[in-house]
Amino acid sequence: MSPKSGTPKKNLMLFSGRSHVELAEEVAKHLNVTITPQTLHTFANGEVYVRYQESVRGTDAFVIQSYPNPINEWIMEQLIMVDALKRGSAKRITVIMPFYPYSRQDKKHKGREPISARLIADLFKTAGADRILTVDLHTAQIQGFFDGPVDHLLAQTVLADHINETYGDADITVVSPDSGRVRLAEKWAQQLGDRPIAFIHKTRDPDKPNQAVANRVVGHVRGRLCVLIDDMIDTGGTITKAADALLAEGAADVVIASTHGILSDPATERLSRCNAREVIVTNTLPIPEEKRFGNLTVLSIAPLLARAIQEVFEDGSVTSLFDGSA
Amino acid sequence: MSPKSGTPKKNLMLFSGRSHVELAEEVAKHLNVTITPQTLHTFANGEVYVRYQESVRGTDAFVIQSYPNPINEWIMEQLIMVDALKRGSAKRITVIMPFYPYSRQDKKHKGREPISARLIADLFKTAGADRILTVDLHTAQIQGFFDGPVDHLLAQTVLADHINETYGDADITVVSPDSGRVRLAEKWAQQLGDRPIAFIHKTRDPDKPNQAVANRVVGHVRGRLCVLIDDMIDTGGTITKAADALLAEGAADVVIASTHGILSDPATERLSRCNAREVIVTNTLPIPEEKRFGNLTVLSIAPLLARAIQEVFEDGSVTSLFDGSA
Amino acid sequence: MSPKSGTPKKNLMLFSGRSHVELAEEVAKHLNVTITPQTLHTFANGEVYVRYQESVRGTDAFVIQSYPNPINEWIMEQLIMVDALKRGSAKRITVIMPFYPYSRQDKKHKGREPISARLIADLFKTAGADRILTVDLHTAQIQGFFDGPVDHLLAQTVLADHINETYGDADITVVSPDSGRVRLAEKWAQQLGDRPIAFIHKTRDPDKPNQAVANRVVGHVRGRLCVLIDDMIDTGGTITKAADALLAEGAADVVIASTHGILSDPATERLSRCNAREVIVTNTLPIPEEKRFGNLTVLSIAPLLARAIQEVFEDGSVTSLFDGSA
Amino acid sequence: MSPKSGTPKKNLMLFSGRSHVELAEEVAKHLNVTITPQTLHTFANGEVYVRYQESVRGTDAFVIQSYPNPINEWIMEQLIMVDALKRGSAKRITVIMPFYPYSRQDKKHKGREPISARLIADLFKTAGADRILTVDLHTAQIQGFFDGPVDHLLAQTVLADHINETYGDADITVVSPDSGRVRLAEKWAQQLGDRPIAFIHKTRDPDKPNQAVANRVVGHVRGRLCVLIDDMIDTGGTITKAADALLAEGAADVVIASTHGILSDPATERLSRCNAREVIVTNTLPIPEEKRFGNLTVLSIAPLLARAIQEVFEDGSVTSLFDGSA
Amino acid sequence: MSPKSGTPKKNLMLFSGRSHVELAEEVAKHLNVTITPQTLHTFANGEVYVRYQESVRGTDAFVIQSYPNPINEWIMEQLIMVDALKRGSAKRITVIMPFYPYSRQDKKHKGREPISARLIADLFKTAGADRILTVDLHTAQIQGFFDGPVDHLLAQTVLADHINETYGDADITVVSPDSGRVRLAEKWAQQLGDRPIAFIHKTRDPDKPNQAVANRVVGHVRGRLCVLIDDMIDTGGTITKAADALLAEGAADVVIASTHGILSDPATERLSRCNAREVIVTNTLPIPEEKRFGNLTVLSIAPLLARAIQEVFEDGSVTSLFDGSA
Amino acid sequence: MSPKSGTPKKNLMLFSGRSHVELAEEVAKHLNVTITPQTLHTFANGEVYVRYQESVRGTDAFVIQSYPNPINEWIMEQLIMVDALKRGSAKRITVIMPFYPYSRQDKKHKGREPISARLIADLFKTAGADRILTVDLHTAQIQGFFDGPVDHLLAQTVLADHINETYGDADITVVSPDSGRVRLAEKWAQQLGDRPIAFIHKTRDPDKPNQAVANRVVGHVRGRLCVLIDDMIDTGGTITKAADALLAEGAADVVIASTHGILSDPATERLSRCNAREVIVTNTLPIPEEKRFGNLTVLSIAPLLARAIQEVFEDGSVTSLFDGSA
Repeated sequence: MSPKSGTPKKNLMLFSGRSHVELAEEVAKHLNVTITPQTLHTFANGEVYVRYQESVRGTDAFVIQSYPNPINEWIMEQLIMVDALKRGSAKRITVIMPFYPYSRQDKKHKGREPISARLIADLFKTAGADRILTVDLHTAQIQGFFDGPVDHLLAQTVLADHINETYGDADITVVSPDSGRVRLAEKWAQQLGDRPIAFIHKTRDPDKPNQAVANRVVGHVRGRLCVLIDDMIDTGGTITKAADALLAEGAADVVIASTHGILSDPATERLSRCNAREVIVTNTLPIPEEKRFGNLTVLSIAPLLARAIQEVFEDGSVTSLFDGSA
Repeated sequence: MSPKSGTPKKNLMLFSGRSHVELAEEVAKHLNVTITPQTLHTFANGEVYVRYQESVRGTDAFVIQSYPNPINEWIMEQLIMVDALKRGSAKRITVIMPFYPYSRQDKKHKGREPISARLIADLFKTAGADRILTVDLHTAQIQGFFDGPVDHLLAQTVLADHINETYGDADITVVSPDSGRVRLAEKWAQQLGDRPIAFIHKTRDPDKPNQAVANRVVGHVRGRLCVLIDDMIDTGGTITKAADALLAEGAADVVIASTHGILSDPATERLSRCNAREVIVTNTLPIPEEKRFGNLTVLSIAPLLARAIQEVFEDGSVTSLFDGSA
Repeated sequence: MSPKSGTPKKNLMLFSGRSHVELAEEVAKHLNVTITPQTLHTFANGEVYVRYQESVRGTDAFVIQSYPNPINEWIMEQLIMVDALKRGSAKRITVIMPFYPYSRQDKKHKGREPISARLIADLFKTAGADRILTVDLHTAQIQGFFDGPVDHLLAQTVLADHINETYGDADITVVSPDSGRVRLAEKWAQQLGDRPIAFIHKTRDPDKPNQAVANRVVGHVRGRLCVLIDDMIDTGGTITKAADALLAEGAADVVIASTHGILSDPATERLSRCNAREVIVTNTLPIPEEKRFGNLTVLSIAPLLARAIQEVFEDGSVTSLFDGSA
Repeated sequence: MSPKSGTPKKNLMLFSGRSHVELAEEVAKHLNVTITPQTLHTFANGEVYVRYQESVRGTDAFVIQSYPNPINEWIMEQLIMVDALKRGSAKRITVIMPFYPYSRQDKKHKGREPISARLIADLFKTAGADRILTVDLHTAQIQGFFDGPVDHLLAQTVLADHINETYGDADITVVSPDSGRVRLAEKWAQQLGDRPIAFIHKTRDPDKPNQAVANRVVGHVRGRLCVLIDDMIDTGGTITKAADALLAEGAADVVIASTHGILSDPATERLSRCNAREVIVTNTLPIPEEKRFGNLTVLSIAPLLARAIQEVFEDGSVTSLFDGSA
Repeated sequence: MSPKSGTPKKNLMLFSGRSHVELAEEVAKHLNVTITPQTLHTFANGEVYVRYQESVRGTDAFVIQSYPNPINEWIMEQLIMVDALKRGSAKRITVIMPFYPYSRQDKKHKGREPISARLIADLFKTAGADRILTVDLHTAQIQGFFDGPVDHLLAQTVLADHINETYGDADITVVSPDSGRVRLAEKWAQQLGDRPIAFIHKTRDPDKPNQAVANRVVGHVRGRLCVLIDDMIDTGGTITKAADALLAEGAADVVIASTHGILSDPATERLSRCNAREVIVTNTLPIPEEKRFGNLTVLSIAPLLARAIQEVFEDGSVTSLFDGSA
Repeated sequence: MSPKSGTPKKNLMLFSGRSHVELAEEVAKHLNVTITPQTLHTFANGEVYVRYQESVRGTDAFVIQSYPNPINEWIMEQLIMVDALKRGSAKRITVIMPFYPYSRQDKKHKGREPISARLIADLFKTAGADRILTVDLHTAQIQGFFDGPVDHLLAQTVLADHINETYGDADITVVSPDSGRVRLAEKWAQQLGDRPIAFIHKTRDPDKPNQAVANRVVGHVRGRLCVLIDDMIDTGGTITKAADALLAEGAADVVIASTHGILSDPATERLSRCNAREVIVTNTLPIPEEKRFGNLTVLSIAPLLARAIQEVFEDGSVTSLFDGSA
């Protein structure tokens, strides 16, 4: 009689914040689960409230939140969702951030600044997150900000496949829009088949002393199809100026590819006006209708997320998804 | 020669978030300091950035933030400010929250809910807060959510002084708008000179079976000046219905007093329409012009905050400020 | 050959401190398990020693301790039991406190006091507790003192069922013995079928200036059966004075109901002398023979605890036990 | 104007639990301070309550508690005192335990035991202790159980000075009462002037197969004054049997010296009956009148504690007090 | 459809640092598993790099590292291996240290020293270790340095079996080489059948004032086979001097037994020259060919480690392995 | 009489590990202090031991350690030094790492790797470090790995001043030796007066299919003085191949500048053989005589470290040292 025995079960439950329900539903569909029903709303004074409508005891919980503007709302919402899971006895809590918030504040650029990307990691740890699953961090070092496992997925393959299919025969040069992303350009260049690379060097123009900054193209781009890459497009200033500089330098054409389409104003205006042939992003962030424009292509990140969640749940190898580089 | 010696100094620096600069400035004036200059803005995608323009090394830092809507913005802003202070080597960081956010989510009302008020305490601890200074917590137990000293100031004296001066000669009954604040009413009754108390009991009305809830007055209010008290007024529904019930029960007049004037829509409309003679709040939250109305009185909490900051800085006794009850 | 595989098992083991073995045995019987055999004694100088006589590796451990006087003995005993489980590789440790110790010190009533209820939560966390299971906390906010899941069971149903059966036809008024438990009275009033409520207001009597405090009844009680409720009865002073006040005010009869029967001296004397028709408590605390008296009814909390343990072990929903309010 | 400056002060405040007020007062006298006035009592159900009657903000707090039976009471009392200091903004909290509780449970002697001495260290850390000051730990490794500075004072000098003065001319052999304290005996032997040592070896007696254990003296003791040493005397069984064995082996006389006089029943009876010439202890624990007997000498530890507190307060070197071995 | 279910599996994976691969392979063989393949090397500047060649998600990981010189290399290597397991989502990480490094720095022998044995425990906790499995700690209190379960195996049985078989008929006296291991000698004496014990007392020799220290034998050894025991042999100075002293005192023969054969220079020379009949150690540390000598016997600890790992993996009772004393 | 008061003092003490005593002594000289005397040695089995010869109570401790090979030795040594300071009651502990160890393992380059740079930060935090002071981190994100203030000094100014003085009139192009340091090159270009930049792109050479990798120069270097920059030179392979490529591309001359001269074999050989005009490093790492060669220039980092220590001690602004970018 003495102790009571049994066989443990494990079950996967998917939870979604309100910032990008469409993506969560797409992921759910790929996983063949439904999003856990919940009461989730904002009170009159701005406080967020959540309650799950089903027991979460012992569950392997995956909580998706994307991070468009207003980004702080979504952070607090996801933190509160995690707290409710922790106090509701979820067994393991994986925070899914297709776009990691505050990832550009990953160091002190000057003294007396915060390192908000580290703060974010600590806040989620404090709330109860056991692990983080994210896509294309601004810098890979952010993995090290979290005290626990981080599954870092790369959307580059999704984007590169599209480019290879569409422009594979062209004379491609991969271009970084500034000096900080040249390494990334090099990785792209490999994936597109050992292409040459170039980058835009911002400098004061010695010939025009009164003009603050000039964009110098370093590398050969004349007559070539320039694939201008970046991890995110926020207001689009840097990338569209880079496109201008490339065309001015004689580039045959420009294609812009970026994982995270933040598209803050006036990005849509700038991108639709610039002479890039195509602008390609994924849906790690929601791209509402009013931000879309003619030559914008949005690829879905949902299949990648779903496969990663499945692997995490089954203790399979997420690394295997990405040729050993995840 | 061997070790290098010196005498330590201590200095007080005041920092302010953007939610209620007016209050911070008033506090600064009382303390005879200026708010530390800083760069503090929101990027296009909603991320907050801060940098202090003076060294904060070794300082005794006091960071004021109020919590109107959008409350989550201000939480993240204050967290980021604290992180920047921690990383900038401030010696001690006191977080000042005249109104403690999420204070109503101080327990699980039902299963599978968060306890967001505890989460808030932990988030600030994680960011680097050493201590919290706050006013009139929704429940005093929230003090115990923070792992460190909490100075809990009471604005009741500020409000009660005003009432005593204005209505001291009337036959006052102190009324709690619901069953959960009767203890608070009792404390008010003492402070106003051992007045009788009453409260509003929400119940299903047995005489009107189809009507959900009736407000029954428990206690004697006929012919008396009812001072209806609460810690906060959010949308104003409960308190204005209570005022109605009191007048219906024969109260001579109603005065409403509450520390925190959240005044979410449609509070202003409700309060200005209800037949209360005066509505008294403090400025723990900003009360913008469009929320004000004829018989609203706003008392300043700044002198209280300034005295408390001074005492904390000088290791004096905050308790002494409040007759032993802080 | 490479890695070695297997299927994990889970098993429930029940442990009991020495403060209330009878309750633990009743729970064990409901669960159909036996209490794990152990060596548990106190050395000559007062130090407690424990050793489990069976392996506890990988077990789902539930440790029951009640908190009668000497309360500090039982706290240290349970802490030491938890430490032994942690170091013996138990998989999960649930601390069961039918009565949460120091629950009345849940805030600083004045400056320079401890918040002992928070301290208790932290001590058990430090010793190795993963979760707490408790009954009728003095204030529900204490849930938030523990950094982990708290299952908060309500004994009110157990007590209310008894009252409904015994006195359901009477004209009941639910009465709070002071201003701090009016909300609780309101919940009782609902559960007993939308009954009216009243409470006792302690005030200085303006007519008798030399007499410190008078107990005023607020609400109508004349001719009614007053169900006087509280979460705990310690020395019984407040509740018996309340009973007196109610009868003086013309109440037809008084029934006292309270979850936790601490019954410190001189509670038994006071309660047996007061004119209450029945005094009802549960056995969250042991009620030894010498504390019992004629009209005392003791209801068992064991079935409720056993069901909750079963649900926790099976990852079922404890919330479901209590109409969504646990 | 901007920041506010000042010079920090530091002040020492002494606090005392109720277990051994006499010692605390003696320490206070040596330090020329008074014990901080406080309200400290036990409620009817056994819960301890404390409130300091003076502000403790910014103070360098020293909290003395001794650990006689009921030991768990005093542990909880000191923990609660520390919590109140932490929440009252004391700057640094030093826990003074002249006798470290649960020091004999410093390892798992068997499987499934606690390590209560480590638990004690963690509990005080959790409550808010910054440092520990203690005397003659049962094993010096306990220093490593606390995550912070431990000042470990040695009372051996106090005891040895007395012995040297009284018996310095005799032919002394230092004797350990069992095999675990031989190293300690060696240190004593050095301090008393390179004396020979011996110890008692508990073994089954091969000549008397039915008798469980015999005490064999290992080393030469015939005709010599045996100084029998131990860190503590609890019930006195081991040490008085050792005295018997020494005298049976021809020792000229036996003197017993031990830092901690726990003297649990029947220690007083055993010690007063055994033929030791003198029994010497310190007052790290209170020795009430009824435990005293003719040839008992109690030396005061207060001067040592006072000097150490002074050094800690002034950042002097406690090590210097003890010839480099503290 | 909603949540996704499954049955969890558990699997054991064995990992090995580079300090003693032979032992790890022997353990693997006993467990019938293979060591997980990995890339593990040292870069030109001394930094260690590891990568596992198979997924470690959800695994029950056991990481073996022994601690010969250069001990700090092996510590960092094992810490880094644990970090990689934590970040690779291993479910549970058991650090196996057959010899616990820095175990002799388990207390402050003097002021201003570290307690490195505690530091080691904390470093592994920080890196991600859930539990420690070790053999014959220098002092058992080190178990309490780790905040989690420690399985402390005893090699004494392995050594004692060998001695009983080889020398069981002789007149054995068990001897501790100094005053600090007499308790250990007593345990050995029991296991070898209630043998008498002795120890070496280091003292200043009063007859030869200019000579620093003399080794006095305390206890009877003339004509007996002395089994000289210790937990570790480092440079061999103490133990070989003890052997000399025993032979000088008339011992018939000396056998040396010790769990950990550190054998730092000039241990091999000293031991091979001393007149001990046999020197017995285990392979908790690697004993390379050049350190071996004629009468050295090396017993394998691998079967013991393998059985313990198996028990930990299966949640069996490691205590049962060792007659209740582990 | 009651509390005892005083004025706190602060004093700076400098401590040095054994890896680069020369640098520590140079820093001490600049600060006008002496290095705190200590006993610091390695036992025969490789364990490190430290003891400070002066009291460290209440001190502001600065502990310098450089990180040449054997890097793990120096890590453990510095950790142990910090532990001894913590346990000796130092008030604040600043760990000075002129070269941050394991800084290249700052992310998972592939799955199942450690993030050793984060581990290092956590190990020092665990040991007791309050803050870190370091020079030219491999990636600035490592600042975010430490939970506390990091003062990140830049040696670039030291190097750039030397280059400006020596080669200021030449037609300089700043060159990054690979795609990951282009941003750094851009910063150098600014500091040297808005110079053009270039970098080396490693790619498979399409013209020579059997040859693995070609170094393509991206940017114009013909006829120019190429200042080839990097944060560290380890074995020198990358940087000397870059120098070759630049000369092959027609560069007039090459000067190599790097903060950290690790110079692992065969760096000295490669660098002395390559045709660079000058190789400039600092002494963040010791450069022993045998690693030096004709055109190597070693600049001292000691003045920078000393100024930063002074500022930290005096709560001045380290940021001010470096034009706002530290």
